[in-house]
Amino acid sequence: MKPSENEMKHHETHEKPDENEIASRLRRLRDAMSNRGLGACVLTDPANILWLTNFANIVHERPFVLVVLQEGDPVFVVPRLELDHVESRTIGKIRCAAYREFPAPAGQQWSDVLLEILISAAGRVGIEPTMPNMVANIVGSTAVTTSIVEEVRAVKSAYECARIRYACRQISQAHAEFLSMMRDGLSQTEVNATVAKSLFGRLVADDPNINPYATQIHTLFQNALASHDPHNFSDLDMTARLGGPHVSVFNAVLNGYGAEIERTFFLGFLPNNAKKPFEIMMEARALAFELTKPGEAMSDVDRAVSDLFVKAGYEDNWRHRTGHGMGVTAHEGPFLADGDDGVIVPGMVFTIEPGLYLPGVGGFRHSDTVLVANDGLECLTQAPHTLDDLVLGA
Amino acid sequence: MKPSENEMKHHETHEKPDENEIASRLRRLRDAMSNRGLGACVLTDPANILWLTNFANIVHERPFVLVVLQEGDPVFVVPRLELDHVESRTIGKIRCAAYREFPAPAGQQWSDVLLEILISAAGRVGIEPTMPNMVANIVGSTAVTTSIVEEVRAVKSAYECARIRYACRQISQAHAEFLSMMRDGLSQTEVNATVAKSLFGRLVADDPNINPYATQIHTLFQNALASHDPHNFSDLDMTARLGGPHVSVFNAVLNGYGAEIERTFFLGFLPNNAKKPFEIMMEARALAFELTKPGEAMSDVDRAVSDLFVKAGYEDNWRHRTGHGMGVTAHEGPFLADGDDGVIVPGMVFTIEPGLYLPGVGGFRHSDTVLVANDGLECLTQAPHTLDDLVLGA
Repeated sequence: MKPSENEMKHHETHEKPDENEIASRLRRLRDAMSNRGLGACVLTDPANILWLTNFANIVHERPFVLVVLQEGDPVFVVPRLELDHVESRTIGKIRCAAYREFPAPAGQQWSDVLLEILISAAGRVGIEPTMPNMVANIVGSTAVTTSIVEEVRAVKSAYECARIRYACRQISQAHAEFLSMMRDGLSQTEVNATVAKSLFGRLVADDPNINPYATQIHTLFQNALASHDPHNFSDLDMTARLGGPHVSVFNAVLNGYGAEIERTFFLGFLPNNAKKPFEIMMEARALAFELTKPGEAMSDVDRAVSDLFVKAGYEDNWRHRTGHGMGVTAHEGPFLADGDDGVIVPGMVFTIEPGLYLPGVGGFRHSDTVLVANDGLECLTQAPHTLDDLVLGA
Repeated sequence: MKPSENEMKHHETHEKPDENEIASRLRRLRDAMSNRGLGACVLTDPANILWLTNFANIVHERPFVLVVLQEGDPVFVVPRLELDHVESRTIGKIRCAAYREFPAPAGQQWSDVLLEILISAAGRVGIEPTMPNMVANIVGSTAVTTSIVEEVRAVKSAYECARIRYACRQISQAHAEFLSMMRDGLSQTEVNATVAKSLFGRLVADDPNINPYATQIHTLFQNALASHDPHNFSDLDMTARLGGPHVSVFNAVLNGYGAEIERTFFLGFLPNNAKKPFEIMMEARALAFELTKPGEAMSDVDRAVSDLFVKAGYEDNWRHRTGHGMGVTAHEGPFLADGDDGVIVPGMVFTIEPGLYLPGVGGFRHSDTVLVANDGLECLTQAPHTLDDLVLGA
């Protein structure tokens, strides 16, 4: 169901999904399956399983496999070890089929249980691009690799928008606390010990039954030396120093839904060589905000951003796409990327985070989480974004 | 190279592997490939990649693929975004082949880069049971699903034994701290805030360049109400109460290597209905320690344990295998499990953790990490194990 504009604009929640929400997701998936001639979907991605069952788990070697046929309740193949755990957390009508253990003797294996369920599957069977090879082998020759669940998940229900809105307000609050404590010599360790702890405390106060399996909090920053290498967070001894650019990297799954906010900031002063790349990044960001709207191709947004970088003389300083999707994970498709030719529709949630990386100077990237509405973007995260506001302690 | 007995017995280290260690692993893998007629292996499991390159990463949607041919340096297909990060952390001779981004336009995708490398692969190509379906599809019809790397990894070098010995001493120390602070009303949150924090502090003191991607610390306990459901750690509000059984669950990857120790304990007094299952668990544990030795089939150990449980009247209270392997992860094959017919050899590391689970009463399980030596077991973890020592505050 498409949320009304009114619902999309105001509602925020941290409540678990109810049976109707789960049933509506299943209905949307089955409609998509019909449209593509799929008689069944076999799923192993923990995000897809969480979305369809409310069961979150850490993936380990014992397979969890959800089978969705066109008729009847979804069947969840789980290790007997976790049966109580699964039954206590799933929402909606789901039949559990437990297997003995992994590994197990012939005839009592997870694959035996799965094969018996698949007897009822008529026609082609959709499987995920990320499905482990050993599970795909069991599905066999009727398998078709498809991102069908990810595509259905890409358009959020009103309830999901409310969850993400809650997560984004929480991460924005944590980020504000971080900016307020930032000073010369502040360490990564101290940020984790204070900001992440108070954020987690707020989540637990709101929901004492918080799902730790669906909660991952990263409150990090990269100093000028490291910020040109945007995915390298391996220096835990890192401290903030005068100058910059430094980049805050706040990405989290907060009790079931993702949120992200990032800012490029400076301490005390703005180095001369940082002004131009910051301004070009800001131009690219404004362009991405302008172009991310219903009807636009995702790839077009990204190409416009990289064209802008090339024209400004930064062809070699591009390292990643303009943005990624957000939902029950904090990092998923669809992507604002050259190569993703999907069309943007209302209900999609993206990060907008064009970035420039200059070894020897540093990294330049803001990230916000935005919701695509009928009449434009709703920016779900809040933080200062101009140079005036981001030269701290000046 | 098989470690000498002397090396196996005494050495402990937290140092990174050197080039020789990495080269020796590659040699062992290539020998195994020759024996099975594999011209190449294509790998995506982050544990296999860590073991062969020293590069640890959080898996996200951008593929990391390591290709090992019989000749030449391994080739590591990585996103351009992470190229600096990869090059700064890998050890040994590895050629990086970066792709543009994920997704990317046709001709610039990860799969294009992988296909070009695979042109040099003659004969059959080994792929992992856990390999994502989309990568297996690119390898195509020459692919053979095999656990060859996991099997080579199963037998630890002297260096690896020293790493695991270090990790086990650290986890034992954390567990001792936990037992010393245990009291009526102690909360899960407080355990995390103190025990995990001091453990992490010791690791950072030993290695300021600790790899956070290869560090995961779980210091948990389950109270009597929850301990019958051994994999459900979702109640963060949990507190310890008088009686029991409570179970401590300390499992961690400590800067690159795994360790596990667990104890069933009681507070103040031993409930009447807990004595018999505790004693039967202890008998099963003693039997598993006795049987886990070179030449024994892993499945035989597990069957002996479950036979003992059945004879004691606990057929319905069995939920999991006797133990799992340990290495660059804290939970991996091979398994002391009915269904794993491999033979135990010196250099293997297992947990020994037969368990009984009685809903309404609780869970009964000790776990230790042990190294199989030529002349028997070296128990790498240390903690009290008898009822006399585990009724705390009595």
